[in-house]
Amino acid sequence: MSLVIKKPFSIPVRVYFEDTDAGGIVFYINYLKFMERARTELLRTVHFESGEMINRHLIFVVADAQVKYHQPARLDDVLEVTAELESVGRSRLIFTQQVTLQKNNARLCSGRIVVACVNTQSMKPVAIPAEIAEGIHRLVDSPV
Amino acid sequence: MSLVIKKPFSIPVRVYFEDTDAGGIVFYINYLKFMERARTELLRTVHFESGEMINRHLIFVVADAQVKYHQPARLDDVLEVTAELESVGRSRLIFTQQVTLQKNNARLCSGRIVVACVNTQSMKPVAIPAEIAEGIHRLVDSPV
Amino acid sequence: MSLVIKKPFSIPVRVYFEDTDAGGIVFYINYLKFMERARTELLRTVHFESGEMINRHLIFVVADAQVKYHQPARLDDVLEVTAELESVGRSRLIFTQQVTLQKNNARLCSGRIVVACVNTQSMKPVAIPAEIAEGIHRLVDSPV
Amino acid sequence: MSLVIKKPFSIPVRVYFEDTDAGGIVFYINYLKFMERARTELLRTVHFESGEMINRHLIFVVADAQVKYHQPARLDDVLEVTAELESVGRSRLIFTQQVTLQKNNARLCSGRIVVACVNTQSMKPVAIPAEIAEGIHRLVDSPV
Repeated sequence: MSLVIKKPFSIPVRVYFEDTDAGGIVFYINYLKFMERARTELLRTVHFESGEMINRHLIFVVADAQVKYHQPARLDDVLEVTAELESVGRSRLIFTQQVTLQKNNARLCSGRIVVACVNTQSMKPVAIPAEIAEGIHRLVDSPV
Repeated sequence: MSLVIKKPFSIPVRVYFEDTDAGGIVFYINYLKFMERARTELLRTVHFESGEMINRHLIFVVADAQVKYHQPARLDDVLEVTAELESVGRSRLIFTQQVTLQKNNARLCSGRIVVACVNTQSMKPVAIPAEIAEGIHRLVDSPV
Repeated sequence: MSLVIKKPFSIPVRVYFEDTDAGGIVFYINYLKFMERARTELLRTVHFESGEMINRHLIFVVADAQVKYHQPARLDDVLEVTAELESVGRSRLIFTQQVTLQKNNARLCSGRIVVACVNTQSMKPVAIPAEIAEGIHRLVDSPV
Repeated sequence: MSLVIKKPFSIPVRVYFEDTDAGGIVFYINYLKFMERARTELLRTVHFESGEMINRHLIFVVADAQVKYHQPARLDDVLEVTAELESVGRSRLIFTQQVTLQKNNARLCSGRIVVACVNTQSMKPVAIPAEIAEGIHRLVDSPV
């Protein structure tokens, strides 16, 4: 009998000049961009495309972001950015995310991001459409 | 006897194309830029300049950011971005900040940002230099 | 008889951390942001608002940008960013722009930016609406 | 006899929310970021790392950028961004670059970017160090 460990979803992100600031390190705000790229790619694994959603006048907006910074990254570094779906609600998704340095796994930054499905006109929360919610549920670890 | 209400420190910020995203609203990450501009200007009122600090191999880095998004801003909007110093530690400052829409005071975004004074080489926390700390203390409301 | 010199349109821009890169200077791409802010404010003087234009399914997009970099700016610097309308066509505007350091007028960056009025759906060039073109023409120096 | 066509250097770039603006398209300035990523990766193929160069107090800065915009990209699009070294001087490199839409090769944007090797303190042009120049020369097509 083998034990299957689900590999957490992550994407590699290279640090370019555009990401740095005069402190010589990655501008702290940009980790939020990296985290959004990872969330986007995680959702793409279940065939979710933000652009299609906008065509339906729906959009996931960030409602709450909590980010802790542990250690800085520098130019040319390669980061690993994880995205894990912590919970799925009627109109809200909660993600927990980590940014580490690929070469030594040093933890750089961790975040908890709440996104809400809203109507692009009213900007009011609406239920995540069933066919999208179905895909998203596949991303959440099933209870044992 | 008159009651003096201290006007909170704030700066106006105009929303340009650079600040928006395909949702037609201000990209949520950019509120963090606006908040940093307000913190920087607040510190400038006590003659603190980030550039001078870097010359001394010191830098304030964000250690923790918590942001709540209430309502979106759009192109051409004028925002008011406050910065209030909640606490001053040996090497840490905690700010609370609000972003509102200037025309109707609608609350768009609120944040609590912890910044730490670190050495630019070691990136380790160091005490805020006395002459800077002195200026900063003038920004904190004295207890009644 | 007095000689009237028309003061060129310009806006001040403060350099924040968000604008810098690991070279310790303003990230070159960001001068294009500063130039766009100046163009936007110039057009606002004749009551042009980008957001209103988008509601009419029109948008000015940049079709061509030529930028020369002369000298870098640094954290905390205050820049002056000019915007001058060089020519007005049926659907195109050409701007020439300068970025200087406010304290000594050192020339940092100069640009020539061509913008085209396009339909937001087709992204094809369309004539600038008459009432907007009228305002814009007031910005162009009349021939002597 | 077979004809060998050297495949031009390019990198894929996915369009995320961070790259778009309220026009629903990629913010034109961001193509310059994409082009820089491609130049950086091209130079990395000959073991050039920007970060190491900064440690030697050298940096490549953009001296001149000319960009033409042909067609916009949208959220979720995958772009191909080329970087070709047009000429190598004592302290200057000239790149020509194209951004196309991966799915149909539509040309979105083309640029000609001049970068100069400068000293990070003086910001004056200096000769590209010999060992770096050597690697870079390998990137230029040899005359037939």
